Amino acid sequence: MDERALLHKAQMAARQGIGHTYTNPVVGAVIVQDGQVLATGYHQHFGGAHAEINALLQLPDPALAKGATMVVTLEPCSHYGKTPPCAAKLIEVGIKRVIIGQLDPNPVVAGRGKRMLEAAGIDVTVVNDTGDLNQAYNFFYRDQRPLVTVKVAQTLDGKMNQAGVQRTLITGEAAYRDSQRLRGQQQAILVGERTLVVDNPRLTVREQTLDYPPVRVALVDDADRLPEHLNLLDDQAPTFLLSRHATHKKWPTSVQVLVDEAWMPATVVHRLAQRGIQSLLVEGGSAVQSRFLAAELVDRLIVYTAPTILGPGLPVFSEYQGHPLNFTLTQMQPLGKDWRIDLRRK
Amino acid sequence: MDERALLHKAQMAARQGIGHTYTNPVVGAVIVQDGQVLATGYHQHFGGAHAEINALLQLPDPALAKGATMVVTLEPCSHYGKTPPCAAKLIEVGIKRVIIGQLDPNPVVAGRGKRMLEAAGIDVTVVNDTGDLNQAYNFFYRDQRPLVTVKVAQTLDGKMNQAGVQRTLITGEAAYRDSQRLRGQQQAILVGERTLVVDNPRLTVREQTLDYPPVRVALVDDADRLPEHLNLLDDQAPTFLLSRHATHKKWPTSVQVLVDEAWMPATVVHRLAQRGIQSLLVEGGSAVQSRFLAAELVDRLIVYTAPTILGPGLPVFSEYQGHPLNFTLTQMQPLGKDWRIDLRRK
Repeated sequence: MDERALLHKAQMAARQGIGHTYTNPVVGAVIVQDGQVLATGYHQHFGGAHAEINALLQLPDPALAKGATMVVTLEPCSHYGKTPPCAAKLIEVGIKRVIIGQLDPNPVVAGRGKRMLEAAGIDVTVVNDTGDLNQAYNFFYRDQRPLVTVKVAQTLDGKMNQAGVQRTLITGEAAYRDSQRLRGQQQAILVGERTLVVDNPRLTVREQTLDYPPVRVALVDDADRLPEHLNLLDDQAPTFLLSRHATHKKWPTSVQVLVDEAWMPATVVHRLAQRGIQSLLVEGGSAVQSRFLAAELVDRLIVYTAPTILGPGLPVFSEYQGHPLNFTLTQMQPLGKDWRIDLRRK
Repeated sequence: MDERALLHKAQMAARQGIGHTYTNPVVGAVIVQDGQVLATGYHQHFGGAHAEINALLQLPDPALAKGATMVVTLEPCSHYGKTPPCAAKLIEVGIKRVIIGQLDPNPVVAGRGKRMLEAAGIDVTVVNDTGDLNQAYNFFYRDQRPLVTVKVAQTLDGKMNQAGVQRTLITGEAAYRDSQRLRGQQQAILVGERTLVVDNPRLTVREQTLDYPPVRVALVDDADRLPEHLNLLDDQAPTFLLSRHATHKKWPTSVQVLVDEAWMPATVVHRLAQRGIQSLLVEGGSAVQSRFLAAELVDRLIVYTAPTILGPGLPVFSEYQGHPLNFTLTQMQPLGKDWRIDLRRK
């Protein structure tokens, strides 16, 4: 196998960690000696051993690492975190060459791992290929804020609701399951106050058990004046209430009230970034989504479309009154009778 | 090769005729002897030899047809039309077995070809696989009217025009070229009077030389009161003016005026069917497209979407006030920065 194929193998291993590593990146590693793959490992869960260590543990004999090449999707770490630095371990076991998919944008590493390996005489190559892994992680460390996703379900003629009907079920079962998977890939999910009160959503991820369910975030005017018994206040996941007024109430331990006199999309992403949140799904309603669009804070757009001309009804993003916003198509796929379009901000 | 593979080969041959056979179906044929493909042929142009005859002409020696199998995408014809019946020719040259993709829905054949072959002792198999060829031809003979296609270009948020702007260029070059190809596959293209007068379109097919360009059809109130020098009145293709009032003017030879006091979508397709037109593209405007939707006379919908949230603007199909209409997704493909969705009426 050539370098590309080995890196691809490591990236495939990394994917197994998706959904389990929380704010950590997913990482995969492969150990090769004389063109033979000896071991494969990946970062299995937040707080657990890193991919490089798991690959070394898979070796039939630790001595086989001596003189071998390690192919790893992300730069080995150089710092003492929840685990000792991987770079030190690679040096210790006698790895001779390291092929790295991408440098780690996290400032605690950011090239230090590579330099530590090189200082020990190890031959290091950086391929600069993320394999589309860790999009939110990379974005967060580059842009200092969470990657913001907006999703919407619409008909062929761009309607999200039938006229005079409070809520129309636009798309089918496959799109529903996909939107649940999408929730599961987020570190936070945001709704506005009207959606919170009218729909009373749980914002939990159905059909999946997550080690770290997304934080449920609601933009409200006054947390203390919310109706009692909202589903968001249960203990199924952490909840942040972004309130414009200070709170004088006692809240369940899963609930935190964050206060700002004038919550703007920019304030929201800033405050969430401070708490280490790398990805945010703005679920609704339409007015909140339009505010994020107007603030040019939507990085990714996911559109579920049903093959129906609805006729009279409420158009999508009808609150958006700004100038035209261009996106780039990244993926399209059928989902049952419906389909999904994935776009990135241009 | 097995039967399926041979039929597929014949279907690929048939495709070479697309755009050249006018109201005739495209047809491909393969001659096989002892598992060896001896010859391939297809119907090359309207009025020319049929696929079976062209395949026979490709044989190095006509005697090789004796005892051979012919795989043909459409039932061999049984009637004397512009050419003698193919079924008679197959019997004459000693073909032993015929594998047919689909029976010919044209009532002048409709099983007669198959029966003629069987009566001569030939073993006939009908696979019932159209290979997605001749959609309009099959539809026309089944439903006694042209297959109606509506195409529309919209933004992500379902707008076809920016607010206050007469015409917005929504989609890019690749979508434009695709829509020209789509025109080239039609036997007629329809516009309403407002589009005719305001846009003054040519409705010709750019970048293609067609043996039979689509008939240009315009729905007008009074043909005699149209402005002079409309592009549609040039001699680049035949034109039908569907007028509500009788004409007293002399028209160029390429122009025919058809009169009906109350043109409805059902009247339009009926009158075009009488003239043998198997496919109709309703190009615009939006009001005319909405009338065809409301009459449930749209069989195929092609949606070009640009990756832009336009904001304030004119929604697609805004004139459509009927009940929800369901379609079925048949194809999706990226086109430059845009994409195209193909749907069939459910």
